[in-house]
Amino acid sequence: MLILGIDPGLATIGFGLVLKSGDKYRAIEYGAITTAPKQMIEKRLSDIYDDMIELLTRTKPDCMVIEELFFNNNTTTAIDVSMARGVILLAAYKCGVDIYEYTPLEVKSSIVGYGRAEKQQVQYMVRLMLNLAETPKPDDTADALALALCHGTRMIPKR
Amino acid sequence: MLILGIDPGLATIGFGLVLKSGDKYRAIEYGAITTAPKQMIEKRLSDIYDDMIELLTRTKPDCMVIEELFFNNNTTTAIDVSMARGVILLAAYKCGVDIYEYTPLEVKSSIVGYGRAEKQQVQYMVRLMLNLAETPKPDDTADALALALCHGTRMIPKR
Repeated sequence: MLILGIDPGLATIGFGLVLKSGDKYRAIEYGAITTAPKQMIEKRLSDIYDDMIELLTRTKPDCMVIEELFFNNNTTTAIDVSMARGVILLAAYKCGVDIYEYTPLEVKSSIVGYGRAEKQQVQYMVRLMLNLAETPKPDDTADALALALCHGTRMIPKR
Repeated sequence: MLILGIDPGLATIGFGLVLKSGDKYRAIEYGAITTAPKQMIEKRLSDIYDDMIELLTRTKPDCMVIEELFFNNNTTTAIDVSMARGVILLAAYKCGVDIYEYTPLEVKSSIVGYGRAEKQQVQYMVRLMLNLAETPKPDDTADALALALCHGTRMIPKR
């Protein structure tokens, strides 16, 4: 089972591709899609869409896992991240890839066992579960891997 | 000059295609793209994208005019409308159509001459400027025509 985790954003989209075999996990590929703030918003959205289509068609994941959005105050950020998220969901749908969503609380609970865990604790568990020498950078990439792992731990094993 | 006005949304996207000739305006086509609330969000976004691509390639507008988003409180609506808006901007970019944005205040100022005008006043001016027997329904369609007219009145005439 190949799981693609995505941490959505307009400037930086973290991605992490995790292979789940039984209860073992392996990081296949991870990184970030970035867009230039000086570009027009529609050009940035188009770059995100094209990069997502390329990533999805090249790596052929069984599913995509994306963070569920909540916003309390900064609505300008909310609008930008949501527009990027719409384009990412569109790319997955066009590639026929199923989409799963988890809240930050669910990710922390699944990985650290505690919904209010600190970012460092989540990153430590990501390193441990994937047997990585260092925490992937930027944070968006580590968050994307955490989302993929969260989905892996929540799947009902086949018997 | 053929101007496509778009009032963005997830369930209902109003559109209005207005031909500007000198200082005259004519409504060429108007209506709404709708999506079913029971469908998955990614399917709804894909339907919006496909319908927008169809509309843009068939009618070949010179530009697309879309409402600038602001949200104060309802963030769930903000996220949904913003995701749809991202997909609409993507469609315009992919079709090579220039995008212009106006706030509701700018639209009201341009059309009624008063930034705090009531919805009914805007709709009355849309009917008058386009010589329509009735106010287009739903409101999203009237709003889309108002956006197109706003852009028309703000363009600097060629001499």
